[in-house]
Amino acid sequence: MTNKINDNSVGIVKSKTVEIKQNLKLDCGKDLKNFSLVYETYGELNSEKNNAILICHALSGDHHAAGYYNIDDRKPGWWDSCIGPGKPFDTNKFFIVSLNNLGGCMGSTGPNTINSETGLEYGPDFPIVTVNDWVNSQKLLADYLNINKWACVIGGSLGGMQALQWTISYPDKIKNAIVIASAAKLSAQNIAFNEVARQAIITDPEFHDGRYNNYNVVPKRGLSIARMLGHITYLSDDSMRQKFGRDLREGKLHFGYDVDFQVESYLRYQAQAFVERFDANTYLLMTKALDYFDPAKEYDDDLSKAFQNTKSRYLVVSFTSDWRFSSSKSHEIVKSLVKARKNVSYSEIEANHGHDAFLMPIPQYLEVLRNFMENV
Amino acid sequence: MTNKINDNSVGIVKSKTVEIKQNLKLDCGKDLKNFSLVYETYGELNSEKNNAILICHALSGDHHAAGYYNIDDRKPGWWDSCIGPGKPFDTNKFFIVSLNNLGGCMGSTGPNTINSETGLEYGPDFPIVTVNDWVNSQKLLADYLNINKWACVIGGSLGGMQALQWTISYPDKIKNAIVIASAAKLSAQNIAFNEVARQAIITDPEFHDGRYNNYNVVPKRGLSIARMLGHITYLSDDSMRQKFGRDLREGKLHFGYDVDFQVESYLRYQAQAFVERFDANTYLLMTKALDYFDPAKEYDDDLSKAFQNTKSRYLVVSFTSDWRFSSSKSHEIVKSLVKARKNVSYSEIEANHGHDAFLMPIPQYLEVLRNFMENV
Repeated sequence: MTNKINDNSVGIVKSKTVEIKQNLKLDCGKDLKNFSLVYETYGELNSEKNNAILICHALSGDHHAAGYYNIDDRKPGWWDSCIGPGKPFDTNKFFIVSLNNLGGCMGSTGPNTINSETGLEYGPDFPIVTVNDWVNSQKLLADYLNINKWACVIGGSLGGMQALQWTISYPDKIKNAIVIASAAKLSAQNIAFNEVARQAIITDPEFHDGRYNNYNVVPKRGLSIARMLGHITYLSDDSMRQKFGRDLREGKLHFGYDVDFQVESYLRYQAQAFVERFDANTYLLMTKALDYFDPAKEYDDDLSKAFQNTKSRYLVVSFTSDWRFSSSKSHEIVKSLVKARKNVSYSEIEANHGHDAFLMPIPQYLEVLRNFMENV
Repeated sequence: MTNKINDNSVGIVKSKTVEIKQNLKLDCGKDLKNFSLVYETYGELNSEKNNAILICHALSGDHHAAGYYNIDDRKPGWWDSCIGPGKPFDTNKFFIVSLNNLGGCMGSTGPNTINSETGLEYGPDFPIVTVNDWVNSQKLLADYLNINKWACVIGGSLGGMQALQWTISYPDKIKNAIVIASAAKLSAQNIAFNEVARQAIITDPEFHDGRYNNYNVVPKRGLSIARMLGHITYLSDDSMRQKFGRDLREGKLHFGYDVDFQVESYLRYQAQAFVERFDANTYLLMTKALDYFDPAKEYDDDLSKAFQNTKSRYLVVSFTSDWRFSSSKSHEIVKSLVKARKNVSYSEIEANHGHDAFLMPIPQYLEVLRNFMENV
C-alpha cells in the first residue's frame, strides 16, 4: 500500500462485466437483444440486500468511481472523495454499484462493440439511447445483482437525470434519490452548446460518418473542440479568473496563434488528454441523451405530474456558480416535488467551481451528503 | 424610394476608400507602409468641423452602419436603429464616420489584400493588429477627413474598447466617448471562448495555415463552429428560452444527428450565412485584438491610472442579461473613471437580449443615448 491508498480508500478495485441476455426495448424503437455492462462494486451487500446504492455517471464519466486499479495509478476513480470507508457514501455501511452506461466507451456495449448480428462494430449504428433506456438497463443489472430495491440512486449532472428517472420509472425499486447539479430538462442554451460540440465532431473530415475506426483515424479535432467548449461551461467565470486570470504562459504576447495565455494552454492540454481516452460516437450519443431528457413532456409539461407516483425521499443539490446547470434548474425540480407533496430536501452549496463543483470535496457539500445518507 | 427607406433613414449610401500613404507602426513591431480604409459617412461636416462622430465596429461588424446600398437591399446597415435624422446619432446634427477596421474583410487592408511589397495576398502574414493600432489608423483617417477632434467616439463590445483607447491615446482629439457592452479587458472565460473559436478554424484541414485562398477553399467547418459558439454567447439563456425553448423543428425527436430542436436549426443557419460573408483570417485576428486589449497593463494593472490623462466625458452602458460582457465589466470601467475623477455617466439597461442587446432598438437604451448626445 502506498500513502495515497489510505484507510479511507476502497483500495485496489477490479471492474466486472455482466452479459445481459435479455431484450431491451429502446425509446428509439429499436431492440438490443443482449448487451454487456461493465461495473464496479465497493463494500458488501448485506444479507437483507437493502444497503445497495447505485452511482450514475455523467457525460464523460464511467464505472471507475472509486479506488485504484493499480498502486501505480496516478489518480483514483472520479468520485473517490465521496466513496469509501467513513466517506459520505460509506463502504462500511453500503454496497455501492457504479457502472459504465450503455453506449459508453469504457467497456459496456456501445459504438465500439461488435454487433453480434452483423459481426461488425456498431459505430454510428449504435442506437441513440435515452436516460430512460439507461435506467431500464440498470434495472436489469440490479436484477442480476439480486438487488430488489436501491437504498439510494445518486448522480450529478446527467447522472442526476438518471436518479430522477429511477424514481419515476421504478417507484418501488428506489428508496432515496440524490440529484446533484442536474435538471429536469435542458434549456435551449444547453442544447445549443451540445449542438456546437456535435457539429465540431460530425464535420471533422476524420469522422467519416462515424466509421472512423474503419479508417484507423479519430476525429480528434472535433472531439478536442467539443471538450474545450465543455470545459469552459463546467467552470465558472470566477474560478477561471482565480485559476488563470490573464496570466501569460511565457510572460509576453506572441502576436500569433500559439498559446499566449495560460487558459489557452490549459484548454489544449485538457482536450488532448480527452481525445486519448474518449470515443466520439459515445460523446455524440451522450449529448443527445442530455438533450432528450424531459420527463414532464408526456405530462403536459407539468413536472409535478411526472413525479406523482414516485415514492422516494429526495435530496437535490446545486452550486451557486454553476451556470451550465444553474440552481434555477434545481429549483424547478424541488418546486415540482413539493407541489406533488413528495419528501424533498434541497441544498444550494456556496462554491465557485462552476458545474465541476459536484466532483469536488467541498466541506459543506460532503456534510450535506453525509447527513442525508445517515437516514438512508 | 420604398417604404423602408423612410424619413428617418439616411437613405442610399455609398462607401468610400482612402489610401493612407503613411507608415503605421504596429504594436507587434511591424510597420504597415501604406494601407486603405473603407468607410461611410452620414450627415454633413459643419464649417467648424466640430460635429464629427466616429462609430467603431465590433468583431464581425463593418463600415456599413446605416442606410442602404440599394433600394432592393433586404436589410440596412447594422446600427440603422441609432443612426439617421432624428435618431440618437442624429445626422441632422452630426457628421458620422464609420469605417471597416484594418485587418477587416470588407474592403480595408487586411488578409485578403495584395501586399504591394510581395505582390501576393497577405493571408496569414497580415500582422495581428491591436485596438491601439486601430485607433492610430483611425487617427490617420481623421486627419484625412480634416477632423481635428471627434465630438464623440462610439462603440459596442470590441467597438467600445476602441472608444476607450481613443480617450487614452488622443485625449485632445476626443470630446466624448460612448462605451457600450464592453470591457477594459477580457476575462479568462472570454479568452477561452475565443480560443475555442480559433482552434476550430485553425484545425480545419481547409485552413491550410491560413492560405486557403491559394487552394480555392474556405475553412467553413471551423468558421461555422466559431460562429455558432459566438452566437450562443451573444444571446442570453433567457432570450434563447423565449425564442426557441425546447421547440422541435418537426414536432418529434429523430434519434439521429439531424436537427431535432429549433435552436439547432437556427445555429446552423446563422453559421452558414456567416461563412458566406466573413473571412477566417480576419475572424482570427479580431479575436486576438479582443484578447490583447488591456490598457491598465502598463499601469500596474491600475485602470484608473490608464485614464489619468484623459479629457473626455464618458457614457458607459451595459445590459442586465449580457453575460459575455457583463455589467461587472462596465462597473470596473466606471469605478476606475470615478477614481480618476473623470466625468462619467453609467446606465445599466434592463434587457434580456444578452450581449446582442447593444444592436437592438430598446426604448430605454435609445433614450439614454439620445440624452447623452444632446449634450455632445
